[in-house]
Amino acid sequence: MKDVKAFVFDVFGTLVDWRSGVAREAAPFLQRHGRGAHEAEAFADAWRALYQPAMEKIRKGERPFVKLDLLHRENLEQVLPQFGIDSRQVPSSELDELNLAWHRLDPWPDTVEGLTQLKSRYIIAPLSNGNIRLMVDMAKRGGLPWDAILGAEVAQAYKPSPEAYLRTAEVLALPPESICMTAAHNSDLAAAQKCGLRTAFIARPREHGAAQTTDLKPEGKWDWVASDLVDLARQVG
Amino acid sequence: MKDVKAFVFDVFGTLVDWRSGVAREAAPFLQRHGRGAHEAEAFADAWRALYQPAMEKIRKGERPFVKLDLLHRENLEQVLPQFGIDSRQVPSSELDELNLAWHRLDPWPDTVEGLTQLKSRYIIAPLSNGNIRLMVDMAKRGGLPWDAILGAEVAQAYKPSPEAYLRTAEVLALPPESICMTAAHNSDLAAAQKCGLRTAFIARPREHGAAQTTDLKPEGKWDWVASDLVDLARQVG
Repeated sequence: MKDVKAFVFDVFGTLVDWRSGVAREAAPFLQRHGRGAHEAEAFADAWRALYQPAMEKIRKGERPFVKLDLLHRENLEQVLPQFGIDSRQVPSSELDELNLAWHRLDPWPDTVEGLTQLKSRYIIAPLSNGNIRLMVDMAKRGGLPWDAILGAEVAQAYKPSPEAYLRTAEVLALPPESICMTAAHNSDLAAAQKCGLRTAFIARPREHGAAQTTDLKPEGKWDWVASDLVDLARQVG
Repeated sequence: MKDVKAFVFDVFGTLVDWRSGVAREAAPFLQRHGRGAHEAEAFADAWRALYQPAMEKIRKGERPFVKLDLLHRENLEQVLPQFGIDSRQVPSSELDELNLAWHRLDPWPDTVEGLTQLKSRYIIAPLSNGNIRLMVDMAKRGGLPWDAILGAEVAQAYKPSPEAYLRTAEVLALPPESICMTAAHNSDLAAAQKCGLRTAFIARPREHGAAQTTDLKPEGKWDWVASDLVDLARQVG
């Protein structure tokens, strides 16, 4: 087990199904504003497509660190015109409410059982780009049994910036090699591995819907490859 | 209930018995170094006495923020000569190990039940001067069911500096009046109240041993006064 003491996790896609969850919350909103509920998954994809560019400004130092809730809220105003909705015509409170869709995502079926098993032997924490309150709301709703909420807001840096991983190791008071980054995204694991962390890959072939073409299999030399979180817990004892 | 959404907690003294716990861990150390185990409580008190002065330098800006684990470790070297022990004669690894005494403190008998009840209706988190790893170790050992670990390390400020309370409110994305600070120390509650937080007092008359003279009763207009955490949970529904 290579002396691993903590498992840290990507959350959006790896532990929870953001696409279905955001679509579920967006459907009644779209209908209220004259659009079809059948557009909800495309809406979730379009909103999510603005996620990396928004963080990139902060990674590059073009903008000071702000929480993901704020980036999601700005991205929401940006995405509405793509669906023919003028954000200035929508009450701000309604946008605030829709923005909380990201706090109400369902875990994949194996997530809670796998985390619970891992928690009995390791420290478990999200190492997500989501902010602390977002992670707390999601955990309370879905029953994710975190030991602590770590990630971008604690590190004041967004993955895959090295600071996100290295500051998390500092907070855990562990050498990077005693921490295992667990994710459904090869790029996240590659960045973590460069910082010295151990890595575990779990494919989530429906994260982007039935037509997903990315991250269907491991693309690096990861320490563990598991079919789901319960399988990972079994592999690491 | 005044729209309270989160309860945040002082930990050392309010939720756990630091004096007995540190004494328990110090006793074999003192014996190994030619002292009596009967000095262990005095040793805990002497170590703890250096806690406020160490943080004060950081509060005043004379030193950048560092974790409590480091302050405890420095204070340990400072306290040893008071007990006739030359810290240079003790292996560093032995001091590191003794320093972890603060990670292994027992909760008071009502703590876990009270927190568990509060967690079903509110966000619960420590707002302690203890660092995240310290709080995680203590929670895993004692079964404290936190939703998140907040406090000095997340806020990068030590209580009673206003930043410790106000940055915690920012992280929780709540107005201060929706957060209740719970503590056995009137001074902590006074500082929280000045920042707009709600306050709950719980007396811990044995925190400093049988001869305790401070914080035996509420000394301010606190929103709740409870006999223990289970009583607090009952009062707030």
